[in-house]
Amino acid sequence: MSDQPIEERILSAIQTALSGIDGRVPLHEPHFSGNESAYVQDCLDSSFVSSIGKYVDRFEHMLAEYTGVQRAVAVVNGTSALHAALTIAGVGQNDEVLVPALTFVATANAVTYTGAVPHFVDCEEKTLGVDPLKLENYLKKVTRKGVDGCENKFSGRRIRAIVATHIFGHPVDLDPIEALCRRFGLVLIEDAAEAIGSFYKGSHVGNRGFLSVLSFNGNKTITTGGGGAILANDEALGDLAKHITTTAKVPHPWAYIHDRVGYNYRMPDINAALGCGQMEQLPSFIYKKRALAHRYAEAFSDVQGVRFFKEPEFADSNYWLNAILLDDSVQGYREDVLELTNQNGIMTRPVWTLMHKLSMFRECPSMDLATSESIERRLINIPSSPML
Amino acid sequence: MSDQPIEERILSAIQTALSGIDGRVPLHEPHFSGNESAYVQDCLDSSFVSSIGKYVDRFEHMLAEYTGVQRAVAVVNGTSALHAALTIAGVGQNDEVLVPALTFVATANAVTYTGAVPHFVDCEEKTLGVDPLKLENYLKKVTRKGVDGCENKFSGRRIRAIVATHIFGHPVDLDPIEALCRRFGLVLIEDAAEAIGSFYKGSHVGNRGFLSVLSFNGNKTITTGGGGAILANDEALGDLAKHITTTAKVPHPWAYIHDRVGYNYRMPDINAALGCGQMEQLPSFIYKKRALAHRYAEAFSDVQGVRFFKEPEFADSNYWLNAILLDDSVQGYREDVLELTNQNGIMTRPVWTLMHKLSMFRECPSMDLATSESIERRLINIPSSPML
Repeated sequence: MSDQPIEERILSAIQTALSGIDGRVPLHEPHFSGNESAYVQDCLDSSFVSSIGKYVDRFEHMLAEYTGVQRAVAVVNGTSALHAALTIAGVGQNDEVLVPALTFVATANAVTYTGAVPHFVDCEEKTLGVDPLKLENYLKKVTRKGVDGCENKFSGRRIRAIVATHIFGHPVDLDPIEALCRRFGLVLIEDAAEAIGSFYKGSHVGNRGFLSVLSFNGNKTITTGGGGAILANDEALGDLAKHITTTAKVPHPWAYIHDRVGYNYRMPDINAALGCGQMEQLPSFIYKKRALAHRYAEAFSDVQGVRFFKEPEFADSNYWLNAILLDDSVQGYREDVLELTNQNGIMTRPVWTLMHKLSMFRECPSMDLATSESIERRLINIPSSPML
Repeated sequence: MSDQPIEERILSAIQTALSGIDGRVPLHEPHFSGNESAYVQDCLDSSFVSSIGKYVDRFEHMLAEYTGVQRAVAVVNGTSALHAALTIAGVGQNDEVLVPALTFVATANAVTYTGAVPHFVDCEEKTLGVDPLKLENYLKKVTRKGVDGCENKFSGRRIRAIVATHIFGHPVDLDPIEALCRRFGLVLIEDAAEAIGSFYKGSHVGNRGFLSVLSFNGNKTITTGGGGAILANDEALGDLAKHITTTAKVPHPWAYIHDRVGYNYRMPDINAALGCGQMEQLPSFIYKKRALAHRYAEAFSDVQGVRFFKEPEFADSNYWLNAILLDDSVQGYREDVLELTNQNGIMTRPVWTLMHKLSMFRECPSMDLATSESIERRLINIPSSPML
């Protein structure tokens, strides 16, 4: 068995876990078998498909109840949610925001929309997210207390916030990150775009951030076509998030007065109708996704040189996107694995190109990123749809 | 008859034009009686509700064909379309963009997202849009030719572009505005958010701008729940618009490389499915909206002190939002008209608060805005749904 090339052994392990699945297997596809059609049709029948309508309110209540936050505000996508959250956190021109190098590009893009500069930090292999210990040592070295808060000694810019992304749905270690934020005066934003249905020490992710964000893109655990949400554990912050994502219009039966620069980020009601149907199915999706992860763990348990990524011990993860990590000794075979699996109709992909390697972020400040670089060379995402 | 208070005469004229309509009459509501449900259901059945799916392509082709442009790029809303168009036009920090004072707030907001400053210009009563003659005289006075193009003598900033909004769907006078743009080296962006179905001298609006934008918000002539489009008469510009509104990802079967700061502005497929159904009905909506405008014109023809706003002679307008203008002598009755009509279940509203009066834009540069101020005091929008 171990004479087989590693790419064949990996293909075979995936096929074992997916036994009974025929045809091309996408990385992640949505599933609509509940009330989605009925709610969308009801929304069309009401003619309130846009900004006024009952489904946005209902979807926001369902999200708040499920995640345990005070308020959820539905918006057009996770990127806009993050931009709004950073804006509310006071991030702007001449600020820096700590952002993982290993994340989807939206995390860093959203920082630039505020006029601030992303400052890239390394991850730990246990969570794939921000490494709190390494970050602590780094901040001690490169920052000083400025008049305006934490200051980067080298750039002279204020470091205002950190975006902690729960990579592939796996919660980062929030306790030490929160402690760091208190110590250095940083605002914590939880980027839970990939993590609806994931719990950290018994609480749903998104409860610790000053504000947090979710995404409901088509490749996520639940989808609204495109969509996202801002989570707030403070009514006033929730109100503000609603206000600036709905053009900052002052309520009035007919007058059009806007009291600050606002954004047109509200989720249309037709997308929220789809979301309400999806939310009803979320617990069953999570159950099935965790069962699939369990089958992968079994199937990969005797594949030498490969580790199936499992949730950290403090987490119950949604296993949004399953991942395997090649050992250093076989990392050179990553392209072979990608080619063989994709040729065989099983969609796999490497992790995103690290942020500091993208042309537009090459000049941004950054700590040593050894772990992110190692994971980039070794990680492969494998099919993860709830229906597998 | 003329002994009656003006608010009663206006109410009665509206009721005459809407004869046979019962119950509360909203300002503008969407109508779905074609293939909208079928297409949305087909989209759900395909499971491709998000970024990949056939309806976005189909909707973009329908838009390009109907408006006569080379390329249409569907996005989440008109605001994002305008932001992307300005970004592609090279607008950024330390620029100014000429923007009508009389417009919806999104026009000015989108300018600020690029880091530029809105510079407010007056409108003419004939079109409600930019007054080309007044603008010419103003630009002669306040600008000089700088190394980088047209420069504001007083602020020292470059004036990069003008956003010409077709207010309530009525085309502005594009010929002289285009001539001004050539003479002063300004980029023309047509804000046709309200103007799908409107023609200037026989061509659909949106064909003259370097780029132009449409909106499909719930209150527009056709809707996608929320949505917008960028129109381009140049394939390469269309490609660029698509690229930067879809996170600037470089095409590859599995690698995630992005070559510039991009935006998550793409329209989800489920919204495009709705849009395809609406596009099929657009000609009949325009026909009905023009017929309603004709009935209003008749009903108001003998109401002294009030003028129903009619399309300029060079235009065939979609009459998106019908408007009446009070004479100066009776402008003091505007609130009475708003109150009486709304109390009687007929939704009316004043025009948007002028941009230079909003707190966040008070310090922005501005020309004399006498006509805009006069129209603000005198204009009232009246019900305009295609089904009336």
